[in-house]
Amino acid sequence: MNNAPKIAVLLSGCGVFDGSEIHEAVSLLLAIDERGFEYQCFAPNTWQARTMDHFTGEATAIAGDADNRNVLAESARIARGQIKNLAEFDAKDFDAIILPGGFGAVMNLCDFAVKGPACQVNEEVERALKDAYQEGIVIGAMCIAPVVLARVLGKKHILITIGNDKDMAVGIQKMGAQHQNCAVDEVCVDDEHRIVTVPAYMLAKSIKEVARGAQNLMDAVVDLLV
Amino acid sequence: MNNAPKIAVLLSGCGVFDGSEIHEAVSLLLAIDERGFEYQCFAPNTWQARTMDHFTGEATAIAGDADNRNVLAESARIARGQIKNLAEFDAKDFDAIILPGGFGAVMNLCDFAVKGPACQVNEEVERALKDAYQEGIVIGAMCIAPVVLARVLGKKHILITIGNDKDMAVGIQKMGAQHQNCAVDEVCVDDEHRIVTVPAYMLAKSIKEVARGAQNLMDAVVDLLV
Repeated sequence: MNNAPKIAVLLSGCGVFDGSEIHEAVSLLLAIDERGFEYQCFAPNTWQARTMDHFTGEATAIAGDADNRNVLAESARIARGQIKNLAEFDAKDFDAIILPGGFGAVMNLCDFAVKGPACQVNEEVERALKDAYQEGIVIGAMCIAPVVLARVLGKKHILITIGNDKDMAVGIQKMGAQHQNCAVDEVCVDDEHRIVTVPAYMLAKSIKEVARGAQNLMDAVVDLLV
Repeated sequence: MNNAPKIAVLLSGCGVFDGSEIHEAVSLLLAIDERGFEYQCFAPNTWQARTMDHFTGEATAIAGDADNRNVLAESARIARGQIKNLAEFDAKDFDAIILPGGFGAVMNLCDFAVKGPACQVNEEVERALKDAYQEGIVIGAMCIAPVVLARVLGKKHILITIGNDKDMAVGIQKMGAQHQNCAVDEVCVDDEHRIVTVPAYMLAKSIKEVARGAQNLMDAVVDLLV
């Protein structure tokens, strides 16, 4: 046994257009590992809202189609098979839970991409985030994923960023959360609620900016864990 | 226009068990971008040998099945849609071409995983690598992907590494190439043929070792480009 901080990483599929944004997810895993921390990936065992051909940009399947894909099975690609069903997540076992971005966050973890501030959240995702908040572990999110936090924890008036998109900021405020404009190299830290968020590909122009954002996010997590 | 070196990245799908190993591919893109170099991803427009459920570890489709997946479409996930059909690859446009590992390298780019040293190579992959060699641009490969180089360029007696696996080394020698044992943090450099290879997940125990290997690989590429 060791005492390295343990970070749960909540994935939403594998690919920016229908799952977790891969560069963000991998940059996050790398930033965790480089600090000597441990990670465990999780994803809900549910169907994707849609499956996209990432070459043509067209949808090849939607929910209900036989060839649509499963969020847990696809997320397992990023985790090299080392992933658990989110139903097994126990906040007591972790120091933080962090969500990379990608359309999966707003189509699979919740349906914000379709319904906006009136969106519904996958029940296991809602339970995991409420348990994490209740337990007082750090909650982090990248890119568009902070809207999931806004929907679940907005009534606590949490402070988050999705970069500087005005319409998105309005949507976040409608869910009760506060929005802080951030540049790509900045981190939004909500000390009171122990929540950290970074813009990542909401603003990043290349993968090195995403990787830098993941490092900054983990630095902010470390500060909150001290 | 700028004069930044241009690196072609040859992908083989998206996921360690049936495509490109995602951590290796992303670490490579990051190492390229951090040096101010440009990358262009490519993949052959062909069907995967099989499609694996990365959660259960079981095959869900094989070549010929309607629900099997396309190498170019899946590789596009890692490239965020910014990928070209390998048939468009022109070695004259690039300073290097690099292959991440994953089972896709030995099941989709060639069939070494099934046929060993007698394997066949996808015809576009063979053309791209022969053109790259002929043009004198640097050729790189990570993890298991060096066996593709061995099959295409083995008769030139190229020097490569896949870490320290004895059986694999014998297979590589049967294809005419030379094998050099390397530790996870070492790079095998063939100055004569301008080929660089690293063990990556053939030996790496975690993502930070893979990322370090990708950085070392790119350092070796830079040395050859000077």
